[in-house]
Amino acid sequence: MTMEYATRWRAASRIPAEPDKPYVIEKGEGDRAHLFGDLITVYAGGEQTENAFNFFTVEGPKGDIIPAHVHAETYEVFYVTQGAVRLFVEDLEGEQIERVLTPGDFGFVPKNCPHAYRMERHHSQVVGVAAGPGGTFERFFETLGTPAEGLGLPVEPFVPEPRKFGVVPREYDVRFLPDHQWRTS
Amino acid sequence: MTMEYATRWRAASRIPAEPDKPYVIEKGEGDRAHLFGDLITVYAGGEQTENAFNFFTVEGPKGDIIPAHVHAETYEVFYVTQGAVRLFVEDLEGEQIERVLTPGDFGFVPKNCPHAYRMERHHSQVVGVAAGPGGTFERFFETLGTPAEGLGLPVEPFVPEPRKFGVVPREYDVRFLPDHQWRTS
Repeated sequence: MTMEYATRWRAASRIPAEPDKPYVIEKGEGDRAHLFGDLITVYAGGEQTENAFNFFTVEGPKGDIIPAHVHAETYEVFYVTQGAVRLFVEDLEGEQIERVLTPGDFGFVPKNCPHAYRMERHHSQVVGVAAGPGGTFERFFETLGTPAEGLGLPVEPFVPEPRKFGVVPREYDVRFLPDHQWRTS
Repeated sequence: MTMEYATRWRAASRIPAEPDKPYVIEKGEGDRAHLFGDLITVYAGGEQTENAFNFFTVEGPKGDIIPAHVHAETYEVFYVTQGAVRLFVEDLEGEQIERVLTPGDFGFVPKNCPHAYRMERHHSQVVGVAAGPGGTFERFFETLGTPAEGLGLPVEPFVPEPRKFGVVPREYDVRFLPDHQWRTS
C-alpha cells in the first residue's frame, strides 16, 4: 500500500502533511526537483522535525563544478552513496580541503565555510542533510529549479531564469561567491 | 593526509574537537562502538551542529529484532544503504506499519512513535539521523555498549551489564517498551 498526501509542496507526495505521522518512502519516490543536470529528492523536510533537520539526495551526471557558496546558519553533510564526488571546502582561517569522496565517505561543512563540489562519475549520488539553528533548506532546489514529476535525471538541464539568482538563494541561506578561488589543485 | 583529534569522546578521532572545522572521514573511520552484534559509527555529533542533528551508521548481521522503544523528543531517520532492514513503527493512534527497506529506501519515525527494527540480511547498513528539539543521541550506543578501536563488526556480541539498562536509555531519551506487541504479521 502506497500512501499519497496533498502537502504545501506537492499535490501528491509520499511525505505526510502532518508532522507526527511515521512513513516509509521507497528509493526515488520522495519529492523530486530538477536543477541544472541534477535530480534532487527530498525524503524529509523541516516540517517533519520541528526544523531540526532534513534529508535529501542529489544525483547527477559527471559534470561541471557547483559554484562556491556559503551558508550563514546551515551545517551541511555530504555522504556519498554512489559514484564519486569531489568536495572543496575552506575553513574559517582560509585553509582549503579538496577530497574525492566515494561510497561511504563523509564530508562535513560547518556554517560560514565556503564550499563547492563536482560529480566525478556519472550516476553519482550524495545524501545531504542541511540544517542548523536557522532551520532547513531542502526546498531551495525546487524553488531555484523546478519540481519534477518523473523519475530519473533531467532529460535537458533545467536552467533557472537569471532573475531568480538574485532572490532565491538569499531566501534559503545560500550565498554564491563568484570570485572564490580554489587553490588546492 | 589524515587528521586525528583528541575529543571528549576519543583520544584519537577523525571528528574535530572544534565545531567550526570542516572535515572528511573515509568510510568506516568515524567514532566506532559495539552494542550487541552491531557496529555503530558516528560521523557527526551534536557538537558539530549546535545540536541540530547528528549522522551515524549502524551495521549488523542478520539477527534478532531490536526491541520496541520510543523517544519523547527525538525524530529518527532509517535510510538503508546495504542489505535489508525490517522497520516496525506505530503512529500516535496505534496504527502500525511493518516494511522491509532495501538500499535507497527511507523510513521516518516521529517522536513518541514506538518503533523497532531487524536486520534481514548479513552486512546490512542503515544511515541514521536522530535528533530533535531536545538534542541528539549518537553517544547512546557507546554508553550502553562500548567504544571500539577496530574496524568491522564485533567478533563476539557486546552485552551490556544489566544495571546499565536502568540508567543509560533514560539519559539519551530512549524508553524501551518491553510489553509492546507488533500486530502487523
